[in-house]
Amino acid sequence: MRAFIVLGHRVPLTPDFSLNDLPGSAGRLDILCRCVTAAFCLSHGIRRDVLVYLVLQDQIVVRLEGSRLKHLNPDERSTAALIQKALRAFAENTYKDREIESTPGIFIASGGLSEALQSAQGLGLTVYWLHEHGTPIRHEKLDENAAFVLSDHLEFSPQDVALLKIFPQLSVGPLSLHADHCIVIVHNELDVRFAPASGFSLR
Amino acid sequence: MRAFIVLGHRVPLTPDFSLNDLPGSAGRLDILCRCVTAAFCLSHGIRRDVLVYLVLQDQIVVRLEGSRLKHLNPDERSTAALIQKALRAFAENTYKDREIESTPGIFIASGGLSEALQSAQGLGLTVYWLHEHGTPIRHEKLDENAAFVLSDHLEFSPQDVALLKIFPQLSVGPLSLHADHCIVIVHNELDVRFAPASGFSLR
Repeated sequence: MRAFIVLGHRVPLTPDFSLNDLPGSAGRLDILCRCVTAAFCLSHGIRRDVLVYLVLQDQIVVRLEGSRLKHLNPDERSTAALIQKALRAFAENTYKDREIESTPGIFIASGGLSEALQSAQGLGLTVYWLHEHGTPIRHEKLDENAAFVLSDHLEFSPQDVALLKIFPQLSVGPLSLHADHCIVIVHNELDVRFAPASGFSLR
Repeated sequence: MRAFIVLGHRVPLTPDFSLNDLPGSAGRLDILCRCVTAAFCLSHGIRRDVLVYLVLQDQIVVRLEGSRLKHLNPDERSTAALIQKALRAFAENTYKDREIESTPGIFIASGGLSEALQSAQGLGLTVYWLHEHGTPIRHEKLDENAAFVLSDHLEFSPQDVALLKIFPQLSVGPLSLHADHCIVIVHNELDVRFAPASGFSLR
């Protein structure tokens, strides 16, 4: 099981944004959509053993469960529409801290990074903080069951750092990359190590 | 210098498609847009030493030059708008085989995979064919100056294969991945090998 916790620092908490303007009025929701695609989408299928937590402004958590996911396509707009639907369901929900399933495999409730970390740890996942100053991922022993925390285009906030500083920091490469590209590289590293088919193996 | 040649087998040859329907009426242009983002976009900047050739139905080549690129944002829709603009300029151009620059760094002319390969080889780039049955990229000696050929969601056509079979085949991992995810992994492999800052090095 692999999980990705992605912090969206500016993504709106209500569904009142245009699907035609994801980088603008939707607060860089395009980044989170590409993260969802990177986390789940294979060339012809879905990675079922993956969880994604989208943490919106440290107030709402959208949780995507690969084992139940339906209607997910790889393009940004259709993923944004699913998240918008989740925010609409959340707005209409009286009990905000009770998780509801807006479409198959997509759950939403109030919560922040703290709750997402707690959920991942409750599943027995080892938490890693993806950070450009971390240890190169290729040099590190990795747990096959792991959760990786990433930020959108903005730096981790002091509140984020306070929660994350106890976890090992990993870096995916010598350059600073987009969050979704980091997810692709993490998946590849774990694929090569733990699914050593077709000649791939950890050297 | 790195180049990526991406084959779009169904992308329209005219600008008559909706930016709201990239996976549908635009023939999976969403894939090519994510490929452009993966090829050029760093967290805070553009990879200037990159070229992308988008080969549309083996009839039109859109060439993107990192050293001159302007107005490129990481989201799919704005990239699709730039490609649409290129197709509009192409439609209005009398001399189809004479390349024109539709926006800074984006060039368009008639041509196919053959012309794209010829252009990349003319720049002295070593050509690799990214293929799921290729040699694992981590095991292979790689040229720093290289062009990688990928396909969109469809298989390489018999015509593609006839041109590509002379080139070494590389695979990025044990699973079959989206083209843009392959580009991310290729970049990472070359970054780790040839930009060995911050503790990364080829093992």
